[in-house]
Amino acid sequence: GFAKVDNHRSLRNGFPEVIYCEGKSLAEIEAIVKEMLKHENNILASRAEKEVYQQIKKIAPEAVYYERPKMIFIEKRKLKKTKSKILVVSGGTSDMPVAEEAVITAEALGNSVERLYDVGVAGIHRLLGNLDKLDDAEVIITVAGMEGALASVIGGLVDKPVIAVPTSVGYGANFGGLSALLTMLNSCASGIGVVNIDNGFGAAYLASTINLQIEKAREEG
Amino acid sequence: GFAKVDNHRSLRNGFPEVIYCEGKSLAEIEAIVKEMLKHENNILASRAEKEVYQQIKKIAPEAVYYERPKMIFIEKRKLKKTKSKILVVSGGTSDMPVAEEAVITAEALGNSVERLYDVGVAGIHRLLGNLDKLDDAEVIITVAGMEGALASVIGGLVDKPVIAVPTSVGYGANFGGLSALLTMLNSCASGIGVVNIDNGFGAAYLASTINLQIEKAREEG
Amino acid sequence: GFAKVDNHRSLRNGFPEVIYCEGKSLAEIEAIVKEMLKHENNILASRAEKEVYQQIKKIAPEAVYYERPKMIFIEKRKLKKTKSKILVVSGGTSDMPVAEEAVITAEALGNSVERLYDVGVAGIHRLLGNLDKLDDAEVIITVAGMEGALASVIGGLVDKPVIAVPTSVGYGANFGGLSALLTMLNSCASGIGVVNIDNGFGAAYLASTINLQIEKAREEG
Amino acid sequence: GFAKVDNHRSLRNGFPEVIYCEGKSLAEIEAIVKEMLKHENNILASRAEKEVYQQIKKIAPEAVYYERPKMIFIEKRKLKKTKSKILVVSGGTSDMPVAEEAVITAEALGNSVERLYDVGVAGIHRLLGNLDKLDDAEVIITVAGMEGALASVIGGLVDKPVIAVPTSVGYGANFGGLSALLTMLNSCASGIGVVNIDNGFGAAYLASTINLQIEKAREEG
Amino acid sequence: GFAKVDNHRSLRNGFPEVIYCEGKSLAEIEAIVKEMLKHENNILASRAEKEVYQQIKKIAPEAVYYERPKMIFIEKRKLKKTKSKILVVSGGTSDMPVAEEAVITAEALGNSVERLYDVGVAGIHRLLGNLDKLDDAEVIITVAGMEGALASVIGGLVDKPVIAVPTSVGYGANFGGLSALLTMLNSCASGIGVVNIDNGFGAAYLASTINLQIEKAREEG
Amino acid sequence: GFAKVDNHRSLRNGFPEVIYCEGKSLAEIEAIVKEMLKHENNILASRAEKEVYQQIKKIAPEAVYYERPKMIFIEKRKLKKTKSKILVVSGGTSDMPVAEEAVITAEALGNSVERLYDVGVAGIHRLLGNLDKLDDAEVIITVAGMEGALASVIGGLVDKPVIAVPTSVGYGANFGGLSALLTMLNSCASGIGVVNIDNGFGAAYLASTINLQIEKAREEG
Amino acid sequence: GFAKVDNHRSLRNGFPEVIYCEGKSLAEIEAIVKEMLKHENNILASRAEKEVYQQIKKIAPEAVYYERPKMIFIEKRKLKKTKSKILVVSGGTSDMPVAEEAVITAEALGNSVERLYDVGVAGIHRLLGNLDKLDDAEVIITVAGMEGALASVIGGLVDKPVIAVPTSVGYGANFGGLSALLTMLNSCASGIGVVNIDNGFGAAYLASTINLQIEKAREEG
Amino acid sequence: GFAKVDNHRSLRNGFPEVIYCEGKSLAEIEAIVKEMLKHENNILASRAEKEVYQQIKKIAPEAVYYERPKMIFIEKRKLKKTKSKILVVSGGTSDMPVAEEAVITAEALGNSVERLYDVGVAGIHRLLGNLDKLDDAEVIITVAGMEGALASVIGGLVDKPVIAVPTSVGYGANFGGLSALLTMLNSCASGIGVVNIDNGFGAAYLASTINLQIEKAREEG
Ligand SMILES: Nc1ncnc2c1ncn2[C@@H]1O[C@H](COP(=O)(O)O)[C@@H](O)[C@H]1O
Ligand SMILES: Nc1ncnc2c1ncn2[C@@H]1O[C@H](COP(=O)(O)O)[C@@H](O)[C@H]1O
Ligand SMILES: Nc1ncnc2c1ncn2[C@@H]1O[C@H](COP(=O)(O)O)[C@@H](O)[C@H]1O
Ligand SMILES: Nc1ncnc2c1ncn2[C@@H]1O[C@H](COP(=O)(O)O)[C@@H](O)[C@H]1O
Ligand SMILES: [Mg+2]
Ligand SMILES: [Mg+2]
Ligand SMILES: [Mg+2]
Ligand SMILES: [Mg+2]
Ligand SMILES: [Mg+2]
Ligand SMILES: [Mg+2]
Ligand SMILES: [Mg+2]
Ligand SMILES: [Mg+2]
Repeated sequence: GFAKVDNHRSLRNGFPEVIYCEGKSLAEIEAIVKEMLKHENNILASRAEKEVYQQIKKIAPEAVYYERPKMIFIEKRKLKKTKSKILVVSGGTSDMPVAEEAVITAEALGNSVERLYDVGVAGIHRLLGNLDKLDDAEVIITVAGMEGALASVIGGLVDKPVIAVPTSVGYGANFGGLSALLTMLNSCASGIGVVNIDNGFGAAYLASTINLQIEKAREEG
Repeated sequence: GFAKVDNHRSLRNGFPEVIYCEGKSLAEIEAIVKEMLKHENNILASRAEKEVYQQIKKIAPEAVYYERPKMIFIEKRKLKKTKSKILVVSGGTSDMPVAEEAVITAEALGNSVERLYDVGVAGIHRLLGNLDKLDDAEVIITVAGMEGALASVIGGLVDKPVIAVPTSVGYGANFGGLSALLTMLNSCASGIGVVNIDNGFGAAYLASTINLQIEKAREEG
Repeated sequence: GFAKVDNHRSLRNGFPEVIYCEGKSLAEIEAIVKEMLKHENNILASRAEKEVYQQIKKIAPEAVYYERPKMIFIEKRKLKKTKSKILVVSGGTSDMPVAEEAVITAEALGNSVERLYDVGVAGIHRLLGNLDKLDDAEVIITVAGMEGALASVIGGLVDKPVIAVPTSVGYGANFGGLSALLTMLNSCASGIGVVNIDNGFGAAYLASTINLQIEKAREEG
Repeated sequence: GFAKVDNHRSLRNGFPEVIYCEGKSLAEIEAIVKEMLKHENNILASRAEKEVYQQIKKIAPEAVYYERPKMIFIEKRKLKKTKSKILVVSGGTSDMPVAEEAVITAEALGNSVERLYDVGVAGIHRLLGNLDKLDDAEVIITVAGMEGALASVIGGLVDKPVIAVPTSVGYGANFGGLSALLTMLNSCASGIGVVNIDNGFGAAYLASTINLQIEKAREEG
Repeated sequence: GFAKVDNHRSLRNGFPEVIYCEGKSLAEIEAIVKEMLKHENNILASRAEKEVYQQIKKIAPEAVYYERPKMIFIEKRKLKKTKSKILVVSGGTSDMPVAEEAVITAEALGNSVERLYDVGVAGIHRLLGNLDKLDDAEVIITVAGMEGALASVIGGLVDKPVIAVPTSVGYGANFGGLSALLTMLNSCASGIGVVNIDNGFGAAYLASTINLQIEKAREEG
Repeated sequence: GFAKVDNHRSLRNGFPEVIYCEGKSLAEIEAIVKEMLKHENNILASRAEKEVYQQIKKIAPEAVYYERPKMIFIEKRKLKKTKSKILVVSGGTSDMPVAEEAVITAEALGNSVERLYDVGVAGIHRLLGNLDKLDDAEVIITVAGMEGALASVIGGLVDKPVIAVPTSVGYGANFGGLSALLTMLNSCASGIGVVNIDNGFGAAYLASTINLQIEKAREEG
Repeated sequence: GFAKVDNHRSLRNGFPEVIYCEGKSLAEIEAIVKEMLKHENNILASRAEKEVYQQIKKIAPEAVYYERPKMIFIEKRKLKKTKSKILVVSGGTSDMPVAEEAVITAEALGNSVERLYDVGVAGIHRLLGNLDKLDDAEVIITVAGMEGALASVIGGLVDKPVIAVPTSVGYGANFGGLSALLTMLNSCASGIGVVNIDNGFGAAYLASTINLQIEKAREEG
Repeated sequence: GFAKVDNHRSLRNGFPEVIYCEGKSLAEIEAIVKEMLKHENNILASRAEKEVYQQIKKIAPEAVYYERPKMIFIEKRKLKKTKSKILVVSGGTSDMPVAEEAVITAEALGNSVERLYDVGVAGIHRLLGNLDKLDDAEVIITVAGMEGALASVIGGLVDKPVIAVPTSVGYGANFGGLSALLTMLNSCASGIGVVNIDNGFGAAYLASTINLQIEKAREEG
């Protein structure tokens, strides 16, 4: 027989099941959530329009909606928060939906999360005034659009895992986020792992697998 | 004043200084190594042709050369190996130089490293016959060229940090590694962090920052 | 004079005429169908909005509409189904419209068709649990978006003709299906023929020319 | 346990093992061939420079070298040729290495193969004067560089499986074969399966899986 | 002083002034037309929505609207038609708006124009059945989308000036007309001049400069 | 039966046969030329290295070599030169090989040809000081690399057929001639037909079909 | 501590604060403006729809709206205009929104600005008839879409700083402004600095930093 | 008649004539230099291999060769240095040839130039420790490869003209400098003018036109 390799996940009760709503009809989403509600796991829905939330609320009244990142969270069991921390850093106001997608996802996966927003290179002194926040975290997610230089600057400042999320914020030669994506892949600061454009969810998921490994090591010695 | 944020690195004696040799003259490399030899750090040189090694050996007889990944390592102090492990998985024979760049780098940074080679999707049963190796590691680096599907398959099998390195192996519509790069960025398996094409060094560096956080947590509780 | 080379098609009564509706007005489509109805061939319309169906139904009451793939089928003569089978495999829910376009087309061309859906690499055990289905078919169509790794995995498992359809499902560095397309073209598993992004019709058409050759050989010895 | 799904291949004694030589050292290739020679399968090496052949000949005197496609074939057991035929059609003289890679591969896999060369659209009357050849084959491989229109013309003339191989022949806005590749993917003639640029091997492999299915049906009824 | 080089244009009374309407407001277009109406030249407006026509008709009741190519023509003086002919050939129904833009433009510039539509390579016998039309014209414009192979086929059949217009008709790897554009630029048939995607106007303009040179030579000897 | 449509070509004795030498071996070229020498046509070889010329000279002593455009011309019958003229305009010194390829080709096809070189936009006064040359020609070929603006400037100055050849001269964001190619396709000056990057031959061939039509009209009235 | 390096800006009272409105909600913009209104700086909002203006007017009645470039300017202190001048040159009518964004921005930053519009290469005599305007300015901004050749022509005519703004005006192979962008980057006229597609604001900002340096030198000697 | 618009250049005796050597033969370069030596201007040759220098030295013994940027300078008249300064900032060692091309060019054009090298974002404290150098210059040129973030960081620190030169330093997803180019075009720091990849000459030329305007204003008041 064939079996899922690692089962650290199943050891942590409450670990959410996830629905990516884009491209699914209201009826499809409702059916999937109904199925999921039969188990005792938490449920996280991403890229969900408000109408989706309104429908889901009827069958899961404890559902909470996060407007900016368009996420729904149904918490059926509280997860113990990790001791180590994920810091989400973002460049500008327009990057916030993606940054918040990362924050909500990371929290739903049981991580302690901090925010450091609006510290893009156009106002680099704001970043340099918050070095202690970089110092305090175990894993850093940097979210940046336009040219995405923020990821490089942070990668140059710390020696910790940095997960970089390019956003599609920008226009013209930005080519829908390509510019920030290439910046992050070519960064002369070592130690940066890149995810897809606007993929706050994926960044948080990766950061969480890292953070849970750290947590497990702390707990198990 | 301004200071490097975290100093976990300096706490670990023997942590290497790194030279990227591509595009530097023999004389330049020699000068840099001479300067570095004044400190007691280990030295790691990447993308170094054999001639470079022969020259460096004259001023640092303890230098070791790794042919496949074209790396030189000068070990002046032994680093304690980590308890947790980085596993480097690769698709085919041609991906080996990049995979070995990752292995040598990770080891030079003090990590315990395992290899699982030649398990690309064209012979997927070889991968499925080695699930215990995936199970044993704390961090996984997957190295794959052509279409890079290996990263997706592994990402779907485990819930640990997966660092994916696309290689430039392939031809035609491969566009110098673009195909594998896009595969890894768009993977439907969550939790994959991508580095630049052929960047085995960067993948190992990121894996190492993750592994050292794990190690630190284990040691400090 | 000049003549269509092979006439296997005309030998099979009921072989449909095809209309590609995208970019044609309702009036144009109606006119074409009216013209076609004068012959005794079946009629298959692809990329047809519901309004098109409602209009066509008035002049061809036997018309059937398939919502997901947006296809209309007018069956004026029943085709004998082939003994050998085409299997349509798909990755995720969002790939279903394209997968169904392949299924309906293949059936309209007289083929026996099986489905194996939702077996993408993020849940690869589901695929591995259905190896008998791969074993049973003569030709396989794999439909996958995002990074399209499913085609590679299947190509590595079987030694039969595999037709791969990249879908435009995904976002960011997916570039409208380019990522899955490149994956399929660069697959390290040999024996994969690729069609245009979202072209379920073309994949089924090719699979059908293969299957009909097999059928003909079986019948004619 | 896990097993290769279909075993039609192993049923046919003499079916070759394949080595892709590009990027492998002489020593590596020699070692692989030595290993392969222990079994009784035929051996096919692609993208092999003449030096490789000269070395291999020493350990396998029956090895034959094909200059144009740079292939080595070691035939240890004769395969029965198929009754049905694969036709390889090519545009111009410069496409011949790729066309011959397809021919030699298809023959090594046990297929009966015909050639129809130099019938590109710049001299379309030559193609139109050979319609019987198109008529006679069960599967067609079309090899074309520059704008690759040949594939479309052939796809429009027949209702059989057409495998299209774009070549990198051309310059300027050809972008290394991209032009022919896009032509083949976007062909308005249905029923064309496309492989990677210059991938004569892959086209023949796919054509062979088709042809062997036809053959099996003929034999098994 | 500086002067327009050649004045063949001004010698031909009635030669139109041209407005490209896309991206201009109704008010702007109206103002420009009013200004133009002060002279005795014909006026041709391209990419004009029906609303534009309805507005222009109020100030120029002789204005005629062509629905498919969205063009308005105001003929204030009749141009003598050329003796030599421009033939506009197109692939499929969806290419007709672009083909008609070429036809109307060429006629407005005083040329005799013939049409040969729906002769794409998927039904190449229709083209081969109309070789006399190719023979009769002095200049040929070929309009084709998808893979654009029609231009190559025609270029291979004749030794006259062929102007090729790629259209944006298609989807997926068509990339908005790029596929047809590259086909036409890389055609192995010599003697093809290419214009921008969907630029029926430009093709006709170029064809007209050619045809008028021919006409002038005929008249002036 | 099927026949080449127009036979204006065969009417003009001496019209050359053409060999494109790139990618052909010395032996192949020699064989082709030998075959051609059996007929009484002129022979034009493009992209021919000096070694090719030295070999050809042995079998055709009347062969002439043009170093810059790397062309060989074997004139067996003198063509009467056209009365109307083709003008070849080029931007900079580095564009000369391509410009000369156009000149030699056009002359070999029987056209009267003029040159106007080194008049790129960086020294636009040189172009403006030669307006009479533009005035004198019937057809203009403009050859330009880097950003290719020269084609637009000329297109804006004249109302004659302008054939534009982008060259690969440049570096960086030039992308091997893409920049000049796009400039020419998007020119706001109407009436420009574009050929492939560095394709001086194709431009001359097209210009010649135009010029021969003009000539024919002049002669036949 | 860390401080903004140069403070020429703060020396000039009235220098505006800037809001980029695209992607911000009405509420967010209002909040930012309210905050800004507490200081005595001028306020400039770019990419602002009319609704934004109507809302802002309620809290800042002195706000002025510029329709074409969609900009709002709130002038709380008059800036002394510079003696030296910025000239904004544009190609066609459709480039005007971008050109006006540059004009309004430059004026809001305290510069004397001149306009020279509709002088694209299709009507190059209009540019050549206005050479005195080019002569009079200290800095030139050229705004051009389609192939963007205007920037090259101007760069070839003057020896002053030229800032080039490619616009997204065009279609087909224009690829959203890429064509004009590449033209400007590859211009054979030296001394051209390029900004992002449609970035009139950025061009004016750069021109203004240049002009203010000139002004400062004039005043301070 | 037509005349070069501004003649500030000719007012400054000694202003060099420039030769771009790439793609020119030794003989051609020698001929051009001989011609130039007849005037009393300085001569600057870029992209000149050492052999070129050795040849030129014979006819102009005062010629000086700069190895890194491969430039030759023949100074026949000393230019008065400007009072205001151009600062050239670069990221890493590999960017030095381009940075030095900018320095030598700027000096040859009569500017006072300062260097600030090796201050890339991977060691951002080195940049922050040299803010006074940024403060001291009137115009800044930033040269950076890989992801090019340095330009953004500097653009965020100063309010002066910043000219950004992307270099082709990097590999993989760097695509020959595209990554740094896009970064600089999309920078969220306003006031950056971008030149072509590796175009140190062009950046210096633009910086010089700016600096000379400043100088002129200082002198003329
Ligand atoms: N979904 C589809 N994608 C691509 N081609 C199609 C599709 N549906 C139909 N076709 C092709 O379009 C042709 C009909 O096109 P038309 O004559 O434009 O309606 C058929 O012969 C098919 O080859
Ligand atoms: N010319 C070729 N192009 C692409 N794939 C090939 C080619 N020749 C052989 N192969 C594939 O490469 C595999 C062998 O790869 P390797 O194990 O690296 O030698 C074979 O199983 C084939 O599937
Ligand atoms: N049209 C524009 N294009 C690019 N950048 C702009 C534009 N308008 C304003 N900006 C920049 O955007 C910054 C304000 O951005 P934000 O804080 O997001 O409103 C300003 O400091 C400018 O540098
Ligand atoms: N490194 C360089 N990159 C780009 N353009 C250059 C460079 N060096 C010189 N140039 C330009 O090339 C022109 C000389 O070109 P040419 O006449 O071909 O030698 C000069 O006027 C400069 O504008
Ligand atoms: Mg770091
Ligand atoms: Mg996983
Ligand atoms: Mg297979
Ligand atoms: Mg067909
Ligand atoms: Mg022709
Ligand atoms: Mg013109
Ligand atoms: Mg200039
Ligand atoms: Mg700034």
